[in-house]
Amino acid sequence: MPSLYLIPVPLGDEDFNDGLVQKSLPLYNIEAIRNVKYFIAESAKNAKRALKKMFFTCNFEVNVDDFEFFELNEHTNLREIYDYLEPMEQGNSMGVLSDAGCPCVADPGNAVVEMAHKKGFRVVPLVGPSSILMALMASGFSGQNFSFNGYLPQKEAERNQKIKLLEKKCQKENQTQIFIEAPYRNLKIFDAILKICSSETKLCIAAGITTSKEFIKTATITSWKKMPQPPIEKIPTIFLLGK
Amino acid sequence: MPSLYLIPVPLGDEDFNDGLVQKSLPLYNIEAIRNVKYFIAESAKNAKRALKKMFFTCNFEVNVDDFEFFELNEHTNLREIYDYLEPMEQGNSMGVLSDAGCPCVADPGNAVVEMAHKKGFRVVPLVGPSSILMALMASGFSGQNFSFNGYLPQKEAERNQKIKLLEKKCQKENQTQIFIEAPYRNLKIFDAILKICSSETKLCIAAGITTSKEFIKTATITSWKKMPQPPIEKIPTIFLLGK
Repeated sequence: MPSLYLIPVPLGDEDFNDGLVQKSLPLYNIEAIRNVKYFIAESAKNAKRALKKMFFTCNFEVNVDDFEFFELNEHTNLREIYDYLEPMEQGNSMGVLSDAGCPCVADPGNAVVEMAHKKGFRVVPLVGPSSILMALMASGFSGQNFSFNGYLPQKEAERNQKIKLLEKKCQKENQTQIFIEAPYRNLKIFDAILKICSSETKLCIAAGITTSKEFIKTATITSWKKMPQPPIEKIPTIFLLGK
Repeated sequence: MPSLYLIPVPLGDEDFNDGLVQKSLPLYNIEAIRNVKYFIAESAKNAKRALKKMFFTCNFEVNVDDFEFFELNEHTNLREIYDYLEPMEQGNSMGVLSDAGCPCVADPGNAVVEMAHKKGFRVVPLVGPSSILMALMASGFSGQNFSFNGYLPQKEAERNQKIKLLEKKCQKENQTQIFIEAPYRNLKIFDAILKICSSETKLCIAAGITTSKEFIKTATITSWKKMPQPPIEKIPTIFLLGK
């Protein structure tokens, strides 16, 4: 039976031999997708490079230019994806990849998985790095009750209101609150959090997870105010508020 | 500098040569913890066996009986863990393991991570299988806004109320709701969900992830009612409600 493989991609791409495939993927994944030729990807270019690195690690001679890619990202008209699973109808397995990390988390990949379930195809999630989950593990905050909120609103007033709301949820419901920001705005949101949240609230910042720039720290707002700015400028970062 | 490694454990343990280490862990993890001799574990017995399997996979000659284990689970008095990080004060790295999956998610391991941050130690999350995150990936539901709620209340009336509340959150806030149950009560809660939720609500059931018993299916409540009972009795299962 054809399967839809959900294929995690290493977090970060420092260079072709950065060792991040070995560091963050079970080699089994690469065996599992060895014969897959059809992929749904957030970006075909990035997916090609990621697959090239994966197959190279296992010494598999595979030409990724022979593969067929279908793009699915925030610019995709969801009416267009209707025939993306056509290769599966013909009996071929397919793969889903996002630009980094686990597909279908913080990206729109779930739309094809939904279709696969409707058509009765087998869906196979593979193990790999999720910056959200790894940040949660490393935060020291409760992992028994947590919420991922995606990106915060872009307008300052709305964004500040949202931060206040998340802090309140954290305190009242003891639910760890996780969110992200476009990397070039990381320091802006860091400053906003320090301004808005109360002194005893705890903030965890987890940046560049698994890469050579990994930085993970949890402290109260008061303590963060006394420290130098964290090294998160333009680096993918997860923000967590905890009790 | 000593590090506190957060060490994922395969989901399930079918037998010593079940291949689940290869399937669900990067071999790098085992290299990384090769010289660690102090572990904080949900259960010392299970952690010993998991480490034995990991080291065996890499042909590392290591005697796990030489290791020191500190237990941290729901029966642990949190005052007792105060000196668990003593080996780190002496310059030794330590590891944290739960019985299955990623430590500090759905278990009380976060208490030692919190301490490590307070003492300024480096915290290093390693990549591995999280049934919660893999179920989310495979559900087809939104991964841009989701919430993990842990175990539902045990008393029937409270439990049913909670299910209703989660369904409402799912519909109103478009937030995927994830929860778990003690495996021997899986079918009971499955029946309760079918009774309580409205016919168009979507339920994903993800059981035995990565094992030979893996079962993942998303369907509306109406469709679930027409199908035979899912094979989840006594198998670790993630329940997800989505839109």
